[in-house]
Amino acid sequence: MLYEPVQYVLSGGGKRIRPLLVILSCEAVGGDVTHAMHAAVAIEILHNFTLVHDDIMDNASSRRGRATVHKKWDNNIAILVGDELVALAYRELLKTQSPFIPRVADIFTEGVVEVCEGQTFDKEFESRKDVSLDEYLLMIGKKTGKMVSVASEIGAVIGGGSEKEIRALTSYGTNIGRAFQIQDDLLDIIADEKEFGKTIGGDIVEGKKTYLLIQAYARARGADKKMIRSIITHGGTSRRNISAVRDIYKRWGVIDMAKKAVAQNIQRASLQLAYLKRSGAREMLAWFSEMLLNRNF
Amino acid sequence: MLYEPVQYVLSGGGKRIRPLLVILSCEAVGGDVTHAMHAAVAIEILHNFTLVHDDIMDNASSRRGRATVHKKWDNNIAILVGDELVALAYRELLKTQSPFIPRVADIFTEGVVEVCEGQTFDKEFESRKDVSLDEYLLMIGKKTGKMVSVASEIGAVIGGGSEKEIRALTSYGTNIGRAFQIQDDLLDIIADEKEFGKTIGGDIVEGKKTYLLIQAYARARGADKKMIRSIITHGGTSRRNISAVRDIYKRWGVIDMAKKAVAQNIQRASLQLAYLKRSGAREMLAWFSEMLLNRNF
Repeated sequence: MLYEPVQYVLSGGGKRIRPLLVILSCEAVGGDVTHAMHAAVAIEILHNFTLVHDDIMDNASSRRGRATVHKKWDNNIAILVGDELVALAYRELLKTQSPFIPRVADIFTEGVVEVCEGQTFDKEFESRKDVSLDEYLLMIGKKTGKMVSVASEIGAVIGGGSEKEIRALTSYGTNIGRAFQIQDDLLDIIADEKEFGKTIGGDIVEGKKTYLLIQAYARARGADKKMIRSIITHGGTSRRNISAVRDIYKRWGVIDMAKKAVAQNIQRASLQLAYLKRSGAREMLAWFSEMLLNRNF
Repeated sequence: MLYEPVQYVLSGGGKRIRPLLVILSCEAVGGDVTHAMHAAVAIEILHNFTLVHDDIMDNASSRRGRATVHKKWDNNIAILVGDELVALAYRELLKTQSPFIPRVADIFTEGVVEVCEGQTFDKEFESRKDVSLDEYLLMIGKKTGKMVSVASEIGAVIGGGSEKEIRALTSYGTNIGRAFQIQDDLLDIIADEKEFGKTIGGDIVEGKKTYLLIQAYARARGADKKMIRSIITHGGTSRRNISAVRDIYKRWGVIDMAKKAVAQNIQRASLQLAYLKRSGAREMLAWFSEMLLNRNF
């Protein structure tokens, strides 16, 4: 009853961004990537733990095109599967053969703490009407960004990077993580539905306090402001209002702001790569951030 | 929304058996107890994580005389609080200053894995009618026993014990854990209600597959067997049947068997202490197991 859903979750796919960052960061500081494999797997397992528990809390019925664990089994199994995934993540992490394993475990654990804090903020924001942009950025920094920077930081530490290199790659991860989340908010409104794999405008319908909604609320005036306020007050809106909201976003420059924020964060990430020696892995990291900028999925 | 319930849980009291075992085991191998403090706290925090998540799954409304987290707050908060407690437990554990920290983290992590497995068995057994005594012992070994033996094992490792001493203290913990759980099952039916702090016969009313119920089902015949089978089939029985069930337990020698099993496990635990040098801590461990044998709370 435990390992079948565990296997189900771990075989569900996903972009595998975090393990990729662990491996590339290790290689970019001249480390042996085979030493980073356990940590790479650990971070992906931990990411899956957050998805399983978040899906319970969000009452989400599908994930990656399949039923969520709590729908396919039940809430109790989903709680247990998440807990087990945390344990399995640590088990995998601790297989790492490295003199830096205590430091790696510390970094990883601070990541787990912040993920819990971030998810708490996210749930808290659902019932609040006055979430500021700073609060939003704090929340996504903890909920999403932290484990991305943990991935690049751990890779750099295992690879035996200098403190300067570790700092650069950590900051690379922080900026990539932030860009990634704002891009996600943006894609909800501008993506090609087929490629994105989700229904466009879902965040608007659910009244999710995204980068766009928060910025629109701060900037819009008159009837547009009223519309955004109503979405916040009612915790969502009807499907047929999606294009009206998209127009409001366009009218008040919110889509451009979001695009700019993504580009800025990607640029900040790329600048950090200058602290690393030239290498194939560094090229890959540069490519990776450019790819994020242009992603449509 | 996160740290208030975390504080609530950790200030709720409890017997603090696990941290005591960490500290005494460290001292019993000649270690410096100050080095074991973080690990002692970590194991108690982890124990509280299991209680918070188990209470959701069992839909329990009170714990240690107070409302459970999911009742006082809600299920989402309780899931998050449990997750956060796991992270805080690792954070605390990793503060340990010891050359053995990678080994300590491994032992701890295997404990977390088994706790999840044990709780899965426990939930699975609720809907099964044919749980054997061996399965029951496997379940409590994982759900309760493992973290007790992890406590004594980690204490011994941090204290710099020899492999022989570590083995002895691990086995001491395993036997103590098993004795403790069977005693718990026994106290449900023979304890003094005021001292025990729980209502007598609660396990019978809920149809919990305890050591006593499983043994009674295996041994009783005729109308007694029918009564026990009916409790299993219906997943419980009325309050007014408690004394009838107690009589069945007495008639088929089940209470004596449970007492004997407790005494045997305590004795096995005590025998392990012979592998340790004489010390105040060893005396305390001997006293501790005797105390368990006579506990009424």
